[in-house]
Amino acid sequence: MTSNKLHEECGVFGIYSNDDIDVVSSAYYALFALQHRGQESCGIAVCDDGVIKGFNDAGLVNDVFTKDVIKNLGGGNMAIGHVRYGMNKDESPRRNAQPLIVTHIKGNMALCNNGMLTNYAELREELELKGVIFRSTGDAEIIASVVVAERLRTGSIQTAVCEAMNKLKGAYSTLIMSPKKLIGMRDPYGFHPLCIGKIKNSFVLASETCALDSIGATFVRDVEPGEVVIIDKEGLRSITTHCNTKPQSLCVFEFVYFARPDSVVDGSCVHEARARAGAFLAQQEKIDADVVIGVPDSGIDAAIGYARESGIPYGLGFLKNKYIGRTFIQPTQADRENKVRIKLNPIASTVAGKRVVMIDDSIVRGTTCARIVRLLRNAGATEVHVRVTAPPFKHPCYFGTDVPKQSELIANRFEDPKELAKELGADSVGFITVENVLKIAKDCKLNFCSGCFTGEYICEPPVKEKEHKYAKKISEGEKK
Amino acid sequence: MTSNKLHEECGVFGIYSNDDIDVVSSAYYALFALQHRGQESCGIAVCDDGVIKGFNDAGLVNDVFTKDVIKNLGGGNMAIGHVRYGMNKDESPRRNAQPLIVTHIKGNMALCNNGMLTNYAELREELELKGVIFRSTGDAEIIASVVVAERLRTGSIQTAVCEAMNKLKGAYSTLIMSPKKLIGMRDPYGFHPLCIGKIKNSFVLASETCALDSIGATFVRDVEPGEVVIIDKEGLRSITTHCNTKPQSLCVFEFVYFARPDSVVDGSCVHEARARAGAFLAQQEKIDADVVIGVPDSGIDAAIGYARESGIPYGLGFLKNKYIGRTFIQPTQADRENKVRIKLNPIASTVAGKRVVMIDDSIVRGTTCARIVRLLRNAGATEVHVRVTAPPFKHPCYFGTDVPKQSELIANRFEDPKELAKELGADSVGFITVENVLKIAKDCKLNFCSGCFTGEYICEPPVKEKEHKYAKKISEGEKK
Amino acid sequence: MTSNKLHEECGVFGIYSNDDIDVVSSAYYALFALQHRGQESCGIAVCDDGVIKGFNDAGLVNDVFTKDVIKNLGGGNMAIGHVRYGMNKDESPRRNAQPLIVTHIKGNMALCNNGMLTNYAELREELELKGVIFRSTGDAEIIASVVVAERLRTGSIQTAVCEAMNKLKGAYSTLIMSPKKLIGMRDPYGFHPLCIGKIKNSFVLASETCALDSIGATFVRDVEPGEVVIIDKEGLRSITTHCNTKPQSLCVFEFVYFARPDSVVDGSCVHEARARAGAFLAQQEKIDADVVIGVPDSGIDAAIGYARESGIPYGLGFLKNKYIGRTFIQPTQADRENKVRIKLNPIASTVAGKRVVMIDDSIVRGTTCARIVRLLRNAGATEVHVRVTAPPFKHPCYFGTDVPKQSELIANRFEDPKELAKELGADSVGFITVENVLKIAKDCKLNFCSGCFTGEYICEPPVKEKEHKYAKKISEGEKK
Amino acid sequence: MTSNKLHEECGVFGIYSNDDIDVVSSAYYALFALQHRGQESCGIAVCDDGVIKGFNDAGLVNDVFTKDVIKNLGGGNMAIGHVRYGMNKDESPRRNAQPLIVTHIKGNMALCNNGMLTNYAELREELELKGVIFRSTGDAEIIASVVVAERLRTGSIQTAVCEAMNKLKGAYSTLIMSPKKLIGMRDPYGFHPLCIGKIKNSFVLASETCALDSIGATFVRDVEPGEVVIIDKEGLRSITTHCNTKPQSLCVFEFVYFARPDSVVDGSCVHEARARAGAFLAQQEKIDADVVIGVPDSGIDAAIGYARESGIPYGLGFLKNKYIGRTFIQPTQADRENKVRIKLNPIASTVAGKRVVMIDDSIVRGTTCARIVRLLRNAGATEVHVRVTAPPFKHPCYFGTDVPKQSELIANRFEDPKELAKELGADSVGFITVENVLKIAKDCKLNFCSGCFTGEYICEPPVKEKEHKYAKKISEGEKK
Repeated sequence: MTSNKLHEECGVFGIYSNDDIDVVSSAYYALFALQHRGQESCGIAVCDDGVIKGFNDAGLVNDVFTKDVIKNLGGGNMAIGHVRYGMNKDESPRRNAQPLIVTHIKGNMALCNNGMLTNYAELREELELKGVIFRSTGDAEIIASVVVAERLRTGSIQTAVCEAMNKLKGAYSTLIMSPKKLIGMRDPYGFHPLCIGKIKNSFVLASETCALDSIGATFVRDVEPGEVVIIDKEGLRSITTHCNTKPQSLCVFEFVYFARPDSVVDGSCVHEARARAGAFLAQQEKIDADVVIGVPDSGIDAAIGYARESGIPYGLGFLKNKYIGRTFIQPTQADRENKVRIKLNPIASTVAGKRVVMIDDSIVRGTTCARIVRLLRNAGATEVHVRVTAPPFKHPCYFGTDVPKQSELIANRFEDPKELAKELGADSVGFITVENVLKIAKDCKLNFCSGCFTGEYICEPPVKEKEHKYAKKISEGEKK
Repeated sequence: MTSNKLHEECGVFGIYSNDDIDVVSSAYYALFALQHRGQESCGIAVCDDGVIKGFNDAGLVNDVFTKDVIKNLGGGNMAIGHVRYGMNKDESPRRNAQPLIVTHIKGNMALCNNGMLTNYAELREELELKGVIFRSTGDAEIIASVVVAERLRTGSIQTAVCEAMNKLKGAYSTLIMSPKKLIGMRDPYGFHPLCIGKIKNSFVLASETCALDSIGATFVRDVEPGEVVIIDKEGLRSITTHCNTKPQSLCVFEFVYFARPDSVVDGSCVHEARARAGAFLAQQEKIDADVVIGVPDSGIDAAIGYARESGIPYGLGFLKNKYIGRTFIQPTQADRENKVRIKLNPIASTVAGKRVVMIDDSIVRGTTCARIVRLLRNAGATEVHVRVTAPPFKHPCYFGTDVPKQSELIANRFEDPKELAKELGADSVGFITVENVLKIAKDCKLNFCSGCFTGEYICEPPVKEKEHKYAKKISEGEKK
Repeated sequence: MTSNKLHEECGVFGIYSNDDIDVVSSAYYALFALQHRGQESCGIAVCDDGVIKGFNDAGLVNDVFTKDVIKNLGGGNMAIGHVRYGMNKDESPRRNAQPLIVTHIKGNMALCNNGMLTNYAELREELELKGVIFRSTGDAEIIASVVVAERLRTGSIQTAVCEAMNKLKGAYSTLIMSPKKLIGMRDPYGFHPLCIGKIKNSFVLASETCALDSIGATFVRDVEPGEVVIIDKEGLRSITTHCNTKPQSLCVFEFVYFARPDSVVDGSCVHEARARAGAFLAQQEKIDADVVIGVPDSGIDAAIGYARESGIPYGLGFLKNKYIGRTFIQPTQADRENKVRIKLNPIASTVAGKRVVMIDDSIVRGTTCARIVRLLRNAGATEVHVRVTAPPFKHPCYFGTDVPKQSELIANRFEDPKELAKELGADSVGFITVENVLKIAKDCKLNFCSGCFTGEYICEPPVKEKEHKYAKKISEGEKK
Repeated sequence: MTSNKLHEECGVFGIYSNDDIDVVSSAYYALFALQHRGQESCGIAVCDDGVIKGFNDAGLVNDVFTKDVIKNLGGGNMAIGHVRYGMNKDESPRRNAQPLIVTHIKGNMALCNNGMLTNYAELREELELKGVIFRSTGDAEIIASVVVAERLRTGSIQTAVCEAMNKLKGAYSTLIMSPKKLIGMRDPYGFHPLCIGKIKNSFVLASETCALDSIGATFVRDVEPGEVVIIDKEGLRSITTHCNTKPQSLCVFEFVYFARPDSVVDGSCVHEARARAGAFLAQQEKIDADVVIGVPDSGIDAAIGYARESGIPYGLGFLKNKYIGRTFIQPTQADRENKVRIKLNPIASTVAGKRVVMIDDSIVRGTTCARIVRLLRNAGATEVHVRVTAPPFKHPCYFGTDVPKQSELIANRFEDPKELAKELGADSVGFITVENVLKIAKDCKLNFCSGCFTGEYICEPPVKEKEHKYAKKISEGEKK
């Protein structure tokens, strides 16, 4: 669990119905399945005979989409939906909520996106110099403007999308709903997943297969890096002009932490990949221990794999309280000590008097990890060996993951594992190697980006940094 | 009261503090005072050292601005606020809520507006052809884009605003907040009011003087038609390039119905104007009656004037229930008969056995008026003479008032007053003449628009009609 | 308006349907009409074939009864409803919300009440010594226990109610709903109103006739002091055993302030009574003035009467903001000066340069009155003469009105009208005489209680004071 | 998971602070830890120097206790809290919410309870004949009345509690807060758990140890069956008069399903007991299978135990969606097929091509179990063997568990395991034996009740059934 986690930016879903499917309900249930990809804001846009309506707001799907809101959205034959986690704390979740609905000279359009552009600043400046105004700080508004600009010069929305891909750099898995078409595009690097499903005669696009499962759709295939898929009443077709134009660069953290364990991402089952990460940890270093436990949620998959590989029995280490919702009142300073324990209580019988291997998916700042180790010791663990299914974060991510400042990263503060163990109060600490983490997704059809671990990026980082520039402009304001 | 009333589009408020004034609170209280100008959505934007934050949503000020929302807005030295009633029922109140906050190449900006552009369609098309996308259907986004486009070519925001006025046609009273300045502009016709107030060393702009009163500010003067006022730390200055370039065309309905009776609009007290309208009605035609009553709220001011002029005693005719709020559950068909009575109950002792003159501010479709007449008869009135402080509506308004389709207007269905009286169940019905209504605001410094009564418009109506065009485009969608 | 007003305790409504009337909707609309009698909590209980369901909570009718709540209450053939203002600030609005629903050995029952028992403490002690526990601090629970105790010894609910009246002392207008009957009882003094209405073949009971009007029921007659009315499928019948056993003692403040002007209480129209109060004030003392204005709401009725009697023209003095609801954020200390003005703004044109008579319905602590006088002077009034339609409060009320401590009453602090005028900032201040106030309700069939003005009570005050005793017990707690 | 689960009635928590502990916050966090014991309503009562305040309502802790509610409760030195699941669907969650706060002749008192009286009907009738009225249908009001009745005749609250135990029959773990004391009592059979904790110098009582953990308290000991513990400023003392007067009868379902796995109930760790239940299932019958999976949540503990005992590998079978909250909109009929899948999605890689042992904690009506089996087959499982950690339910529970009508119980409809397996779509189905289930809680100091499995009850069932009697009385109503 380890709060102060890394955060994914988003999850997307789209459906084009050729049947009598309730597309708004489908989007609603699919967003529940994708909620783990973003808890800050969410939204649904629906297209009914060319007219697009939508609703989005800050909050969880459960809170934003009440019966009344769902009812007011009405019906239609297409819908797209979005869940979002914002990377920049200064951003307003409400202003940046998606799908974005816009009108332009040739019609109207809804758009939602998962990813991060590396040329945001350049594109924005170019558009602004043409007189475009912006109402959010997100990529979606940039992508919409670029697509619309191309649409002015081209004969169809799909051509405009393909042309826009020449301008967009970085990571993007984007859905676009025009009055008659549902379009999905995935950047040529393939940073983030996007898959195709089918239910009856209708097609579905989603960030993860678990969204397909939730509405009873079957998996068809993944959208290829660089591919544009167009769904309309004729069915599904594909434009592959941008395929194979860039090296593959799927974010490996989708397997380690972001995606849901029951999803299959680009051919590889997420749960299995996590279990394999656990197995690699067991292979890397032998520990004399009595029990292996996982920190919920994703540490559990890995702990099962570690147990199988090492022969050390798997045990249920923690009870995670599932009732703590959005309005939970955070403990005050005085109660802070119990903060972790309210959410995550060790099961004493599993660890008391035992040497424990504790598997977590990542260590970012280290504070939560240290508290969990302390809980285990208080519960009677004689030894606590922390093993982590991701290599140490040492470098920023420019492609959609919210890695804190480098100076806050514990891996940058403690190079020596022994000192780190001491800091965490653990008997030892170990990380999966970069080499191994790149092998966990066995059947995955794509190669990985591991820039946050190595500092070597397959796709080039931004020249101008987005946040810095805009934060500065906004705080300084206009001079005259 | 007469539901199915005409609706104003908006009210605006802005404050630039050179003192320790809590600008968000000021906007909050001022919007309460302006709430009658729009109950569909509202919003506040605040500028703190060049950084602009805002919140707006569908709903009344009371519902949208909770303690938490107010707290999250924080403080600052400038704020603008807005209340809105949307003219087109298909428009989303949420998407069109203002102030609009945008960023552009030279900074950021918040904007809110009261009025209606007559060249919306032309401006929008011009902008769209440049690649601009729109997220709302309101004038504010157009005005913002036009101002920003000018800002790219000019050295300051105030110059940009003046240049923009060359492009904007129709009615607009607009507030713009840049990182360092609060700017107000009023269209050269002066369709809708905008006034300047002062509190301590700080300046305030508002649609009506009642907003000044509510925060303890004193009235300074009205913004002139065509004037641009700039408020910053140097104080208030003015650009008058566009003044006196067009004939004055203040909406007379501001006096008859829109404005609050305690406001003074362009030099004339609204309550007095309404009382004078009542007096004109008494002069126009003598009625033998026992009591004069007013339909709340604005009929009451006029009834007092009618009583004074005619010598017939003024009486309290109705009790208006003040507890029926936004969430009031409308009676079902079965209870429909009591619908009016729940809100407006006759005081029997005032009317029983009496010949009654009932003053209302307008008759639009006539259904509510007929119900009220019936209530009076049931309460024992022996005669009911309906007198109306506005001439019959017969023509559309293109400048910010939501007049229904001509075919729905009762004045277009019943030309003959006797037939109209019969339709309403009244003994007689009479309207103020156009000649007289133009004289009710005695000290008003401006001339009036009375196009909705006469069909003769001082400012030319739109060439392309906004709603039709956009409704059609949206419903047909994009062809390819 | 004058905040820091006196408060009534409650309003009640009941309906027994022999038709297809939606009894829950009827209660809902009737409570809106009675909302002025209590804004702290409200509730509705419905009886469907002997099964009683109910919902009540702190808040206005508008807030408590959402569509979902109304829907969950379902239908039935009887309903009672209640609005409440609590007298003791330490009381929980939620715990004391009514109707109270109880089950007992012979069935179930819902009960709601308007009034105040003078032997609360004695009855409570007697019941407690029998082992009864209490969950509220209100009279309703006592009355319910007394009725149920009698029900154990008698053959019917109506006999039990009559027996209970032998035990209850003080003021009570009570509705009781048993599985098959709707019963109303009014204390033998007749302190508070209770009337009977009819709609189709169904009977209705309500605190005021305005509730009948709101649902389209016609007035039948008032419940007599001491009368018990029983409504069931046989129709309405009456038990008059307790009638004429005590001197009449109707609260005169029902006419001055509590009741709605469109109601007729015990034969006398409230609006007319207020107008008459104004007329008496004009007769008592001649003032050279230019305009008479009323402080909304009830000062307006009286000002019209004053104007008629004195010949001084009536004017609209204030605009009262109708949008300030329950969640309105009170101004902080810094904005306090504008607190009154946000709610009540003088109409300058009415008072500027004029000698003003300002009619208010009561002066309790005097602070709000002083602020209003100051607003008028700032608006240009050259003289302000305050006239009050109630005599000075000098004594406590034990029968259902929340008069503050005697030391806080401004009338006890300033005996001399000149000193009081000085304190209020007025040129003069005058009160209606006790003799006159007892004559305002011309056709009223009952005599009045005027104990709060004179200290002479028709019904004897409590021997043991309720609040003191219980406050003390609760704070000291149990010794062992 | 298996919806249509059995339901526990309640969880209780109490704290007496001798330190500077924030007792309301403590209750809030403790109720989160106990939320699994009741999700229908919740409440907290706080005692501040003898004055008791409280708030309770229908809903989860998260929804009922907002910041404002917590703030309004204020502080104090004692608090008790409660979470509740109502057994009878006709009961109102709001009316039955606890703690109950009452006042009586010798003071005031708050009370909350977990359990079910078997002589409810007799006690209620006895009290009603004395004139007591009831506002709820719950045991708590009965217990409060019985205690208060005894308090009238005894010198202290603790004596009254002990005397009351002579009258109360059945299951109850009750907390009582008087102005100066916190008292806990557990019925002599010990049906439901109640434990004592300590934090600094302050004592705590709770249904389960997980509540102690959540606030950083340490476990002291369990309250003995029949014991009364009194906590006041002198510390903790105990009255054991009723101890060992009845055979022990702890509900075994606390271990199988109700309690949280990290709790230790009467000496036995719940997680271990579940794992042991899994081990017994493995011993009872050998299955040739490839993987053992558990249905979340409590099937997981058992699956780990089954895997260890059988040598078949443990696998993660399902992803349970943790975001589906109270306001989740249930799928309509058309989407019903996906209803289970939205909440519980199989992890295909775990089960595809495998023979699966699926462990669930109970089968009540069988519908959900059948759907889960179908999901596993669709995910590719070649065989599905259902094993259940509770014996078949065949008989009603009278002591606090909500077992459906016998005719709805699948175990009563399919005696033959083969037929049951066919009904569920499974290859086989097996239950733990009664003999074994009584051995799962190895170190438990008490003996068990297994009446719902065997029909043999240690404590005698009610003579008069509660619900039937009251439902009938309420629907028939009173005759005269």
